[in-house]
Amino acid sequence: MKLNLKAKETEARIEDAFWQVLDEKGLERLTVTDIIKVANINRSTFYNYFPDKYELLGHLQDQLIDGIKQITNEKAIVTSQSPEEICTMLNSYFINLLTYVKNNAKHILIMYDHDQETLFVSRIHYFSKEFFPYWAKLLHENSEIKAQYAYAGIMGMIASIVLEWFDSDFSLSVEEVAAIANDVVQKFIFQR
Amino acid sequence: MKLNLKAKETEARIEDAFWQVLDEKGLERLTVTDIIKVANINRSTFYNYFPDKYELLGHLQDQLIDGIKQITNEKAIVTSQSPEEICTMLNSYFINLLTYVKNNAKHILIMYDHDQETLFVSRIHYFSKEFFPYWAKLLHENSEIKAQYAYAGIMGMIASIVLEWFDSDFSLSVEEVAAIANDVVQKFIFQR
Repeated sequence: MKLNLKAKETEARIEDAFWQVLDEKGLERLTVTDIIKVANINRSTFYNYFPDKYELLGHLQDQLIDGIKQITNEKAIVTSQSPEEICTMLNSYFINLLTYVKNNAKHILIMYDHDQETLFVSRIHYFSKEFFPYWAKLLHENSEIKAQYAYAGIMGMIASIVLEWFDSDFSLSVEEVAAIANDVVQKFIFQR
Repeated sequence: MKLNLKAKETEARIEDAFWQVLDEKGLERLTVTDIIKVANINRSTFYNYFPDKYELLGHLQDQLIDGIKQITNEKAIVTSQSPEEICTMLNSYFINLLTYVKNNAKHILIMYDHDQETLFVSRIHYFSKEFFPYWAKLLHENSEIKAQYAYAGIMGMIASIVLEWFDSDFSLSVEEVAAIANDVVQKFIFQR
């Protein structure tokens, strides 16, 4: 138990060091030597956890994306039926999603600033396609716009609104941005 | 006059060669030697036109973006007043824009496929911010959503819908996609 805790602590130190160095130098110029210096650990300790910096990057991206996956699975999009249920479900979904994004803003921004190297945006793009089946039923039944265009439009819009929120240094509250997203998505779903 | 024509022809050959080699090798691995081989010209001829491959890339990106600028300036977004005028203006704007995008799809896709190196998407993103003033009046007067969020949402949505159209290999006509874009943008502008 004690060992396990120590292992978790060491892993966290490696991860914190990685974020700091990634922010300063970008991925290409970052080395394992940089990380072990900042984390104050031995080289062999690093390799007990990760084979190289790319695996470490992948691990951290997986963590960020898993958080979004959990939120998306939690809210049972498919089981909501009436417009009122859908509205309530979407609102709490957006609040959870935006709270998560805000809590992880520092790391998301570092990934985004070094996107030429980290390719985080493309990962998010492909990941968002996984969730199309959850939305398809909602969009088919309620929207006159072809479902895959509506879905692409919704995802692009949410991504842009979130980026604008980042750019404005979170000038609106989570609830205000959730209300904007919810409002617009409902226009897609219940048009005319 | 004849010389001028020949110069234009040589420039076009350099550009065609660049697109071909960029598509095959990406920007980093691409060399001036590759381009002059494919274009079948001397090295010194190349340098009469462009100092290096990055200037050539910038020139071609400028050309693509200038096309979009012209279409956006043409349609006097600010002068449209009534909902009917705005609707007609937007529809013809989207038809012009999508026709342009479709006509230049090959080059846009090459840029996009090598975006880690060409950074075309960020250029489009910053360029789109230039046009906010054109839309701001429309959005302030008509939208309850804060104008900069509405604008970010509209741009993100249009970009995603266009990408989906590319991915589906242009399965819908220009008019159909323009109708989707128009429909959604009007929901932003004339809500509730």
